[in-house]
Parts: sequence; C-alpha cells; structure tokens
Amino acid sequence: MSAGTTSYRPRDGAPLGTVADSTTEEVAAAVAAAQGAAATLADTSPARRRAWLDALADALVAHRDELAELADRETALGLPRLRGEVERMAAQIRFYGEVAAEGAYLGVVRDSAPGLVRVNHPVGPVAVFGASNFPFGFGVLGNDTASALAAGCPVVAKAHPAHSLTCVRLQETAAAVLAEAGAPAGTFGMVSGLTAGTELVRSPGITAVGFTGSQAGGLALWRIANEREVVIPVYAEMGTVNPVVLTPAGAAARAAEVAAGYVASFTLGSGQFCTKPGLLLAPAGAGFADAVGEALTAAAPQPVMLTQGIAEAARTGVDALVDAGAEVVATAPGSGQGWSTDAVVLRAPIAAIDAGSRLVEECFGPVALVVEYASARELREVLGRLQGSLAGAVFTDGTPTDADAAWLVPALAGQVGRVTVDEWPTGVAWTWAQQHGGPWPATSRPESTSVGAAALDRWVRPVAYQGVAEEWLPAAGRAANPWGVPQRVDGVR
Amino acid sequence: MSAGTTSYRPRDGAPLGTVADSTTEEVAAAVAAAQGAAATLADTSPARRRAWLDALADALVAHRDELAELADRETALGLPRLRGEVERMAAQIRFYGEVAAEGAYLGVVRDSAPGLVRVNHPVGPVAVFGASNFPFGFGVLGNDTASALAAGCPVVAKAHPAHSLTCVRLQETAAAVLAEAGAPAGTFGMVSGLTAGTELVRSPGITAVGFTGSQAGGLALWRIANEREVVIPVYAEMGTVNPVVLTPAGAAARAAEVAAGYVASFTLGSGQFCTKPGLLLAPAGAGFADAVGEALTAAAPQPVMLTQGIAEAARTGVDALVDAGAEVVATAPGSGQGWSTDAVVLRAPIAAIDAGSRLVEECFGPVALVVEYASARELREVLGRLQGSLAGAVFTDGTPTDADAAWLVPALAGQVGRVTVDEWPTGVAWTWAQQHGGPWPATSRPESTSVGAAALDRWVRPVAYQGVAEEWLPAAGRAANPWGVPQRVDGVR
Repeated sequence: MSAGTTSYRPRDGAPLGTVADSTTEEVAAAVAAAQGAAATLADTSPARRRAWLDALADALVAHRDELAELADRETALGLPRLRGEVERMAAQIRFYGEVAAEGAYLGVVRDSAPGLVRVNHPVGPVAVFGASNFPFGFGVLGNDTASALAAGCPVVAKAHPAHSLTCVRLQETAAAVLAEAGAPAGTFGMVSGLTAGTELVRSPGITAVGFTGSQAGGLALWRIANEREVVIPVYAEMGTVNPVVLTPAGAAARAAEVAAGYVASFTLGSGQFCTKPGLLLAPAGAGFADAVGEALTAAAPQPVMLTQGIAEAARTGVDALVDAGAEVVATAPGSGQGWSTDAVVLRAPIAAIDAGSRLVEECFGPVALVVEYASARELREVLGRLQGSLAGAVFTDGTPTDADAAWLVPALAGQVGRVTVDEWPTGVAWTWAQQHGGPWPATSRPESTSVGAAALDRWVRPVAYQGVAEEWLPAAGRAANPWGVPQRVDGVR
Repeated sequence: MSAGTTSYRPRDGAPLGTVADSTTEEVAAAVAAAQGAAATLADTSPARRRAWLDALADALVAHRDELAELADRETALGLPRLRGEVERMAAQIRFYGEVAAEGAYLGVVRDSAPGLVRVNHPVGPVAVFGASNFPFGFGVLGNDTASALAAGCPVVAKAHPAHSLTCVRLQETAAAVLAEAGAPAGTFGMVSGLTAGTELVRSPGITAVGFTGSQAGGLALWRIANEREVVIPVYAEMGTVNPVVLTPAGAAARAAEVAAGYVASFTLGSGQFCTKPGLLLAPAGAGFADAVGEALTAAAPQPVMLTQGIAEAARTGVDALVDAGAEVVATAPGSGQGWSTDAVVLRAPIAAIDAGSRLVEECFGPVALVVEYASARELREVLGRLQGSLAGAVFTDGTPTDADAAWLVPALAGQVGRVTVDEWPTGVAWTWAQQHGGPWPATSRPESTSVGAAALDRWVRPVAYQGVAEEWLPAAGRAANPWGVPQRVDGVR
C-alpha cells in the first residue's frame, strides 16, 4: 500500500482525489530520465528549445478553461484570476524561450591573447518546487521550470499538495506536447509526496534546486542540499513582510486612496502573495490605521485559503502578532465555510518593530500591520531594523518633489530586491528588467531572480576554453557563431 | 598579553618577526570602518574608483623590488617570480578598474512597460581570505580585493600567516595610497589571526566572503557563514586534482615532450598552485609513467615549501597516495634544509581511481600521479569518477585531427571550469574570458570566478525599480546615463 496526497475543495473541505506518492524507485527513474536528456538539451540550439516552449505554451492556452476549472476546485482562487494565470504561464514560457534564443544568457566572451573562450553551459537536471499560491505562474510549469528548460536543463518538478490534481494534468500535457515537439524523453518529469521531494534534492543526478514558498520549506531544502557529498545551489524564493512607507506629503495628499489600495493589495488572492505588503509605515497623527480599518470594513472580503494548514496558520499568525505587541484595528470576517479565515488589519507601536520580532516576518494570508512613525529619523531607524524583503514600496504625493522619496528609494533598495513608487508590489511582471528576489531571508541566493530574463542565469555555469581549436568549441563560442548569439570579443561587446 | 602570528624563513626555518593577532575590538572597528565607507564607494562612479585603483597599482609597482624581497624572505618563492607577481598584482588591479569603468557589470536593464529599471548594487563590506601561495596575485590585494573594490565594495582582508609581514606592508601601502587618492577611510582594512578571521565572517556588517586556499579552510568558512542569522555567500576557490589526458595520438607523437612539460608544471612554484595538474591519464603501453620519472630525475628540482605545515602535508600526502594504492615511480630529493620536501611522481592502477579516494584529491606540493588507461571506454569511465576541478587539460598530437580531443573537450567541460588543449593549466590569465572556478568542490559557488572580468559579479546584487522617477534612480540606471554604461532597453542591447 502506497501513501498518497489528497486534494481538497477549500470552499467546503470536500476531498477531490488522491495522487499516489512517488516511490524511491520512481524518483530515481525520473532523475535518471532527466540525466538521459541533459546532453541532448544542452546541445540543442536555444532557438530549437524555444520552439518546444512555444508548442507547450500553445497547448496550455488551448486547455486554459479546463485547467482553470480544475485549479479553481483545488484552490478557490477564482476562475477569472486562474484563467488569467494560465495565460500568464504561457506568456512566461514564451518569454523565457525568447530570452534563450537571444543568447546573451550564454555569456560568450572571446579573448585573442591568450586564446580563451568563455561560454555558459546548462548545469544539468534541475529540481523545481513550485508555490502553493500560483498553481500556474509559479507551479510545476511556472517561472522556474520554464527558465530552466529555456536554459537547456531538464526539470523534475515536485507536485504541490495544495493542487496536486492540477499538477498531474499539467505534467501530462507537458509530457505529451514536448514529446510531440521533438524534445527528448526526460525533458520534464514530476514526482509527488514529501519524502519524494527530499529524495529528489538528495539525488546525485540533480544539479540545482528552484523553490518558491515559505522560509521553513525553503531553508529545509537548502540544509539538505548543503549536506550532500556534492553540494548544489538552492534558489529559494521565500516569503517576506515587504514594507511600505507612506510619506508625510503622501498622507496629506491622499491617505484614503492609499488606505483603500493597501486593503486591496493585502487581501488580493486572500493575501496569499509572496509580495503581499504586510507592514505599512505611516506618519503619526494622520489616523492612517483607522483609515485602513474603515477601508477593510467597507471592502469586506471573505477570504478562503488554499489549504487547511494555511488557514490555521493565518489565524495563529494574527495571535502571534498580538503576542508580539500588535492590536487588532479591524476585522472582515470570513464565511466560516471550508477554509475561510478573517481579513485583519493590526496596529503596532514602532518600538516593537525589531529584527527578532514576529512583526517583521511574513504572515501569509489577508493580514497586515500599520505602524506609525513620528519623524524621518525614527522612520530611518525602523527601516534599519527590518529583515531583507522581496519588495518595498514608497507612497508619495505623486510628484517628484516629495523630498522623502529621494532618501527612501535608496534606503529601501538596500533591503529589498524591488522598490516600487506609488505602485503596490503585489504584481510581478516577467520582463527583461524584472528582479524577484532579495536579501536574505527573502532569497537564499540574493544575487538571483526567479522572474525575468535573468532567471535563466541560475541554471548555467561558465567554462573557459584555452587553446581549443574552433572545431572542438561548443557552438555558441565559435568565431563563426552558428547560433548568432552576442559575443564579447577582446573586451568589446 | 596578546598572541601573534610568527613569520618564518622557509629556507632555514629562522623566525622573521611576529604580527599581533587582532583583538575582537579591532575586528569590530575594521568592519565598522568598512561599513562607514560602503555608501560612499557605492555612490562613486566606477571611473573614479578606477582612478583609485590605478593609483594603488602605480604605488605597488614603485615598491616592486622591496615587496618582492620581503615576500621572498617569507615564502622562498624566488625573486624573479615574486617581482613578476607584483607586476601581475598591479596589472590585475588596473584590469578590474577597467572592467568596472566599462560598466557592463552593473547589468543595467530598462523596460518601458511596465516602467522597470534593473541595476546591480555593491553588496557592501567584503571579507577577503587570500592564498598562501600567491602573496601578491591572490593575496590581500589580489583578485578578490581588487575586484571587490572595483565593484564598489569596501574590503577587510585577513593577513595570511604564510607571509604576514608582506601582508602588513601591503596594507600600509594601500591605506596610504587610497587615502591620498581620495577614497574614504575604511575602503581597505586588514585583520590578523585565526580567531579574528572567524570573527570577521561572523560580523553582521560583512556581506560576502572571498577565499582562496584549501578545501578544509574554505569549507570551514562556508559553514560559519551558513550559521549566521543573515547567511552570506562564501566564494571559496579550493584546491583540486586538475586532470590531464594524453591521447594515444599525443603519446605517439610526443610523449617525452609532454612528460617533461608535466614535470615542469607540477613542480612549478614547488607545486604550490591550485591549478597544478596532479593526475595525468596516459595510454597504457607507452611507458609514460617511466618517462615522467626520468624527466623528474633529470630536472631535479629542490622544492622549498611555504610553511612547515605545508611541507609536512606534502610528505604525508605522498604516504596517503601510497596507502590509496599508488606506488612511487621517481623522487627528486629536497635539500633537507628548512621546509624542503621531495618532488615525487607516482603511478596508480586505474581501478583505484574513485570519487571517494585520496587519489582524486589535491596533494598540495610537487607531487603528481600517472594513471594508464587501456581504451577510450575505460578513459571515459574513469573521468566520470573524478571530482569537480578548477581546470583540466588534453594533450593531443598537436593537430585538429586528433579524434579523441573531440569528445574529451566536452567531457572535461562537464567537470571543470577551464579546459586547456596542448597547454598546461598552471597559468591563469586575468582577462575578459577567464573562468577560474569549477564544479563543487573546486568552488563553493561553481557559477562564479575569482579571476577575470566576471570576478566583479560576485560582489553585486540586482535591484529593480518600478515606477520610480528618474531623479530617484541610481545614476547607472537613468535614461540620461551619466556614467555611460551599457544599458539594455526594452530587451535590446
């Protein structure tokens, strides 16, 4: 008898089906298949891999409504959002193919004296642990998988227990489409179950790990990888508090608008975003916490969480914030059905904000804090006490004359991976300039990004060739440049 | 009474002087000074930092002979080599300044929709642990320090006990020249002593670590960094066996030339190179091991090692190789004076070569192995059993028709950071295309290099700015491009 992962309907808690946990033999077989595909993927031109990815994107869009309906049953994230997310997943897959075909990620550099040619090579089979909260955008075919395939690495994903039926459907679709498009067997595989995930990271054939999720989960995989005979990198993108600062001029100009925007941002997707703004610093005396409370009451979201565990963690998270010195300002009660929870805004005294406090950590769910600062000096000090975050935001009076933004933008840049001004950080575009990652503990590799063109850089490793005849160089590095990729020659690009 | 590190003359073991170990307070002060300089360095244009580095290079060249004489007393590496190494250190420092001024390391990317600008920022104060074997090229002002300063990071180096008097002289020179050139106080500092080194890595103000040396030393720092509250990256470049393959055609065409070259390469600098070729795979039946033995006897080097501990480790290393199944082919005895050791070539049966064996690890010193393979298949199998290495070499018959090179080059590329053909790997050029690093355990971060233009990439972290007015962007990211750096705009570079 083999154990399995049961999927539930969050709106009422009804079981939807069970996916069998992968056995040790199945994990080994998935890794072996990926290893078998690695050399072919690496030798295939990025333009050809792009064609495979485009075929995959086409198939996913063709199955959009069916995928969204299945995922909605498992996640309660809503059909409009999930249909859009399927489109996003497909667009991301196309984008990473485009980035690969452009070829800058290969980092080709040629020096005449001495005769040296540097080329980035795919690292080999990558293990991908997708997120609970984005079954498509950050799921088994999300940013990590798409960027790894684009960079020439086979992928073995682990199905997420919050939407394992959707994962299975995605895996079946990808396997069929990639085979049809001509990709070798083993290009994309999947395993299921907690033990299988651990075995995957321990497998000698796995060369790197991508993870999106909680700090506890990401750091657990990072520790396992660090205990291997051959240590491998774990690119873990983990949840953070993502601070927002409202400047005095911003508060004077449009406190109500920012309060409503804060509520919309921290309750979006039931607050289940790694970029959810969880802490807003507002000038004292403007009554901003009460304004957020009123906005929350007026909006009255009825959040349903992805899993029973996540719903419980949101409730106990509020208790922990109160224990750490916060008080509840307002609550918008959930429906009480299935895995519903309350949306809550709290207020905390600025003296309670410290690096070791629960107040500076993510509380996953529709829960957020307001903290008031009395002066720019106090604001600067409290920012220095926060942990690293994925994103940080400044809300100004909307003009470039807001003098506080001039120092807040670089101050936040020292602590986060993305700084937004007068925009909520919740949305993450997949473009050339994107950076989705941040100082520890936002990311286990703060120099990396899991979204945007540079996401490919995680899956390659440079090799220099010295005195090597053109015939024996990899295609990307040859003077004849058969793949037409950017090459820096003798220092000039 | 404070402890200290005594420097000795390797040629006769006489003490030369003692450098006091830094106290806990001195370590904290050095880190605080670096933190105080960090913002100024980051805001200074790369062109200005280049001018500081050029001034430093000028001063080092001006003191070349005096520095080489001091280092020769401490290291016995010889005046010609050490004078050349001072020139190399200065040239590297100029090169990293040039790379910084060119600006590609800033990775600037601008997207119009959404309005996103991505810029790499210096990470902050860097701790540098230089190598025993290159007091200048990889010392306290070597590749790690020069690339970090070029990238805009202050450096706190740890003096190396194998040449601590030279380290002190270099630190004094750098402090004076950098201050004179206008760099802020704290741009470069130094501490001394084992405990001080540990405290440095544990200091919350340190944001990254560069290390060159043994696996034991590098992994110890890596573990300490992984135990911090805020984990930081350790870029440890560690010693490896660096395999060389002689093809059948190469053996037929010029076995004696390759045998002599092997001896010259593995005894260079008394074999104290991290790129020393420590294992040569030759076709069976060509008598290659005996040819190497004859070449060693003819060359008769009289190696003197950097320290007593290194000399002892070379001797016990030979014993360990014998215990692991190797037998001594020939020995060139050392002088017996001071920290001399014997140069030794050994032969081992191919069946003894395995990932867990001492035979596939570095033996630091003038010690090398020859292993014979019976067929291309056996050769391919044994390559798969080696650990990752910094470099690997193929020696052919010197023509691009040597069919074995066609598969050996990519096979070695999968296991090393640099592949050379018909060139010994011992020399490492500091150019745009260089890659000095390799798969674990060659480097704790196999995607990084400690030499070459990409060395700067270790000391920066990307930040994306979303919806941020031009006035508030960092200079490098502005549309007006005041620093004149490469910018990718809407995907086009």
